Amino acid sequence: MLLNAQASGVYTIAATPFHPDGRLDVESIDRMTDFYLQCGVTGMTILGIMGEALKLEPEESLTVVNRVVKRAGKVPVVVGVSAPGFAAMRALSRASMDAGAAGVMIAPVPSLRTDDQIVTYFAQAVEAVGDDIPWVLQDYPLTLSVVMTPKVIRQIVQNHASCVMLKHEDWPGLEKISAVRGFQKDGSMRPISILCGNGGLFLDFEMERGADGAMTGYAFPDMLVDVVNLQKTGKRDEAHDLFDAHLPLVRYEQQQGVGLATRKYVLQKRGAIASDAQRKPGNALTPAAKAEVDYLLSRLARHDPRAQL
Amino acid sequence: MLLNAQASGVYTIAATPFHPDGRLDVESIDRMTDFYLQCGVTGMTILGIMGEALKLEPEESLTVVNRVVKRAGKVPVVVGVSAPGFAAMRALSRASMDAGAAGVMIAPVPSLRTDDQIVTYFAQAVEAVGDDIPWVLQDYPLTLSVVMTPKVIRQIVQNHASCVMLKHEDWPGLEKISAVRGFQKDGSMRPISILCGNGGLFLDFEMERGADGAMTGYAFPDMLVDVVNLQKTGKRDEAHDLFDAHLPLVRYEQQQGVGLATRKYVLQKRGAIASDAQRKPGNALTPAAKAEVDYLLSRLARHDPRAQL
Amino acid sequence: MLLNAQASGVYTIAATPFHPDGRLDVESIDRMTDFYLQCGVTGMTILGIMGEALKLEPEESLTVVNRVVKRAGKVPVVVGVSAPGFAAMRALSRASMDAGAAGVMIAPVPSLRTDDQIVTYFAQAVEAVGDDIPWVLQDYPLTLSVVMTPKVIRQIVQNHASCVMLKHEDWPGLEKISAVRGFQKDGSMRPISILCGNGGLFLDFEMERGADGAMTGYAFPDMLVDVVNLQKTGKRDEAHDLFDAHLPLVRYEQQQGVGLATRKYVLQKRGAIASDAQRKPGNALTPAAKAEVDYLLSRLARHDPRAQL
Amino acid sequence: MLLNAQASGVYTIAATPFHPDGRLDVESIDRMTDFYLQCGVTGMTILGIMGEALKLEPEESLTVVNRVVKRAGKVPVVVGVSAPGFAAMRALSRASMDAGAAGVMIAPVPSLRTDDQIVTYFAQAVEAVGDDIPWVLQDYPLTLSVVMTPKVIRQIVQNHASCVMLKHEDWPGLEKISAVRGFQKDGSMRPISILCGNGGLFLDFEMERGADGAMTGYAFPDMLVDVVNLQKTGKRDEAHDLFDAHLPLVRYEQQQGVGLATRKYVLQKRGAIASDAQRKPGNALTPAAKAEVDYLLSRLARHDPRAQL
Repeated sequence: MLLNAQASGVYTIAATPFHPDGRLDVESIDRMTDFYLQCGVTGMTILGIMGEALKLEPEESLTVVNRVVKRAGKVPVVVGVSAPGFAAMRALSRASMDAGAAGVMIAPVPSLRTDDQIVTYFAQAVEAVGDDIPWVLQDYPLTLSVVMTPKVIRQIVQNHASCVMLKHEDWPGLEKISAVRGFQKDGSMRPISILCGNGGLFLDFEMERGADGAMTGYAFPDMLVDVVNLQKTGKRDEAHDLFDAHLPLVRYEQQQGVGLATRKYVLQKRGAIASDAQRKPGNALTPAAKAEVDYLLSRLARHDPRAQL
Repeated sequence: MLLNAQASGVYTIAATPFHPDGRLDVESIDRMTDFYLQCGVTGMTILGIMGEALKLEPEESLTVVNRVVKRAGKVPVVVGVSAPGFAAMRALSRASMDAGAAGVMIAPVPSLRTDDQIVTYFAQAVEAVGDDIPWVLQDYPLTLSVVMTPKVIRQIVQNHASCVMLKHEDWPGLEKISAVRGFQKDGSMRPISILCGNGGLFLDFEMERGADGAMTGYAFPDMLVDVVNLQKTGKRDEAHDLFDAHLPLVRYEQQQGVGLATRKYVLQKRGAIASDAQRKPGNALTPAAKAEVDYLLSRLARHDPRAQL
Repeated sequence: MLLNAQASGVYTIAATPFHPDGRLDVESIDRMTDFYLQCGVTGMTILGIMGEALKLEPEESLTVVNRVVKRAGKVPVVVGVSAPGFAAMRALSRASMDAGAAGVMIAPVPSLRTDDQIVTYFAQAVEAVGDDIPWVLQDYPLTLSVVMTPKVIRQIVQNHASCVMLKHEDWPGLEKISAVRGFQKDGSMRPISILCGNGGLFLDFEMERGADGAMTGYAFPDMLVDVVNLQKTGKRDEAHDLFDAHLPLVRYEQQQGVGLATRKYVLQKRGAIASDAQRKPGNALTPAAKAEVDYLLSRLARHDPRAQL
Repeated sequence: MLLNAQASGVYTIAATPFHPDGRLDVESIDRMTDFYLQCGVTGMTILGIMGEALKLEPEESLTVVNRVVKRAGKVPVVVGVSAPGFAAMRALSRASMDAGAAGVMIAPVPSLRTDDQIVTYFAQAVEAVGDDIPWVLQDYPLTLSVVMTPKVIRQIVQNHASCVMLKHEDWPGLEKISAVRGFQKDGSMRPISILCGNGGLFLDFEMERGADGAMTGYAFPDMLVDVVNLQKTGKRDEAHDLFDAHLPLVRYEQQQGVGLATRKYVLQKRGAIASDAQRKPGNALTPAAKAEVDYLLSRLARHDPRAQL
């Protein structure tokens, strides 16, 4: 059950649950996985930037992979394997696939600058992990400071049959989706799946530009699922109504640094994880911030009963 | 009528109007100034990053300053004077004050890294422009890649009596407002005005954290004025209701690059400027983007009749 | 007498002389120009990054241009016109050419990332200054953080007939010279002049890779002239012998920040300028650094009598 | 035999030898270690940036550590443990110390900006690896884009008794050595060892400014040893004579990217390693570059017979 270019829907970026003392909370992994499945996600992505992956020992990473894959059953699991060196990328990729993952996700290293450097980097990455592993190309310039033009994305896709999905989180990015889909229409690029990140901040219009869904970690994946489905069934106004009701919180959660703390705080409130603790070094919400999130939830609950916590 | 540390309300970041052929549209400067005043702004900021200042010849810059200052009358005008060199900064500052500006705004050059470098830079800037000119400290790491801690801001404020305002657009930044206000409370920093930028994306909570208002260029400055006033009079829920209705458009307009095109497009629709043209090199909205903005306006109009355009 | 693609030899990057109180030292401009001509340079480049151009008022910049052009007579003068905005670039370019400059030099703005962004930027620059002005493409990633591949350089050269020279200061850069010259050999790029910067640190081998000379500001331009001539006449060992004798000082002078202070200190010692003062904000050599430079000069003087100061 | 603040002399940055097919060349590890010891180094540093550490699987890293530590005997071995996450840093640190390493070296992650962020980062690093492990603070802004002022270095040293050495490779950096030594003199900082990197490009003067020696990987560590000893015994001119003879090659080797290829090429010629191969992705010298290095060696051999290869 490997990831392929027809993937669509919502792949939630999963948090990694910890106990307040910093130990990995293995029980919460199951609970959280169940929560995501009940939200209707079509896939899960683990060990991403928001998954505190860098704080995990290699064995812990494999524990997370194994536990999530097993619990998720038929729901495909993508593993973030970005690393400063190809040795670590290769090791985690092979181990993840052996454990039953559906594919891996690879981001460029921040030092890349020219078009050729970017294209070459992904060629080296594919050589390192092996061309039999389906992978997601992560395009996230805001954090990674690497800018890929649509033409560079096309070249990578054409170079590597194993690249089956674009995780789109350029910013701004709506025209980029149109450009990439335009390449498919004019026959210069084979079709791929496009799932959008950036906390979902533009999901309403991203779907209208041709995205297949979302890959992000907003604490209401069920809203993302609904918006994707409403858009796919042509219920545009309804999609925007629901999206707009969530937008104040989506925006709050999308702040770098504070975002993960907000996300875990809401996930805990929703019962998905036992504690909102981050492993050190991490950020905790201040009392003022918690009160702001609570206020946003209470306002949201007027439109979406799932926010009554 | 110089800018001082008691400034509050909304200082709109003004666009610079051009004819479709690229010439400065001097008539629209008056029209736009009138529009902003009718929106209830308490001040105007011109020649900022969003004002296409770098595309203006020095004489054109002075034309804009003179025209806006004259038309704005008693409404204070702040002039953006950030420049890679102190000679240009000094020249524009002195000329602007001679023309009747209320103060200037200075951003750090992107190459600054250490705390000492930042503090020293502003000391050199004050020496260059003269310590008799009130100025606004612009804190905008997302675009400028210079990160100022609250302690560094405090040191700059304490070093320079002429620094009367912080243009706050760190991201995330709510805790930063609380930290700076905390310095005032514990007596370690004299009071200054804090006006918030970032397109207004967090204005709802920024006011609650102690900001005095907004300094940003959202195409509905009247909404910003209303939110600031509602918050100041304790009408929290009403403030959020109005803000949330605008948030989908605020978010759309806050995209870098696309943002200015969106802003000018809406300002033209509202009759504030004759043309949404940018001087070359500039971005124009694609038909798809225009349709998205129109859709957002139509949705907004259900809550705010000012959006019926 | 316009700059063209056959330019070769040494174009010295000229300092800008100031009085100790910060005023422009106009008399020293003449003296310095005479000094450079006596060193045998084939051209001069003024208002470059090392020329403290950003500290000059616009009228002062024109004073420098006029004075140098007049004094240099038949020796061509290139004017650095890089600027964050095209308005300033255009204004200085036109004024410089009116004053008799042979061409201008343009560096990319530091925010450029993708190949397309770089190519587009120079197209906009050429449109701004006019395609009748010969210009030098400055490739200086160490300071500007913009990386141009040989292919991008080729595209810019092919797009713009007015681009007649590459100021090469990529680092490392020897293979880049070979690559660009390879494009000329395979017919995919028209011939251009390549002059090398980076303080001259690799001039010995750059000449062997196909460079036409140097464009840098080392305080012994006469050494650069000799090395270029020795290499052109096949006296490889002699070229290296002379170069190696200077290398300890070349290296010392190539330090960022300290470099200009060192250069002016030596130029003053050689009688080229009256004072080594930099306009504020500037760096002065510490007594320890001065002693180090003096020691290097005394050691150099054993091999090159021109260093007996 | 732990690293302490009295360390001095030359700690060579060791290469990691590979077979042409990419396998770790374990035999060459011994040969290379013997070579370094014969050169007179007082210590070795392994798995640094130039040691291709990111290309090694975790078990391979431990193989290198174990093999070098065992072969080096009483010569202390420092292990580079810089990593994007603290989990990996901790794991390699503990394993290295268990294997007999003398200490570890830690560089900041490139995203750090403010003084507080840098100080906090090293506090977190020390908490992660344990405050019983002696460590070297690596200050390398050219590659890491993190700028530490002397005051920040002092604060880190004062915060952590386990920080026993500064690997100094700021650029320019001579004044920084003087500033840090000045803190010791005025009693505001406890004494630490300062070893200098940057390929040795300024070692001649670094010693005179108060450095204790070098920590760099130039392919003639025996020259570095000689220069350090000559400077320590007051033979200044002799030190500079020897240094200057090597400077053309030192400079060539210090080019980023090309540098490691040059270093391995010379180490192979000197018999220290069996092959100059880099594990993929790596750079190989072009024939033109090899000829340049050979020419530099032949010129050097006139002054230093060790270069007759």
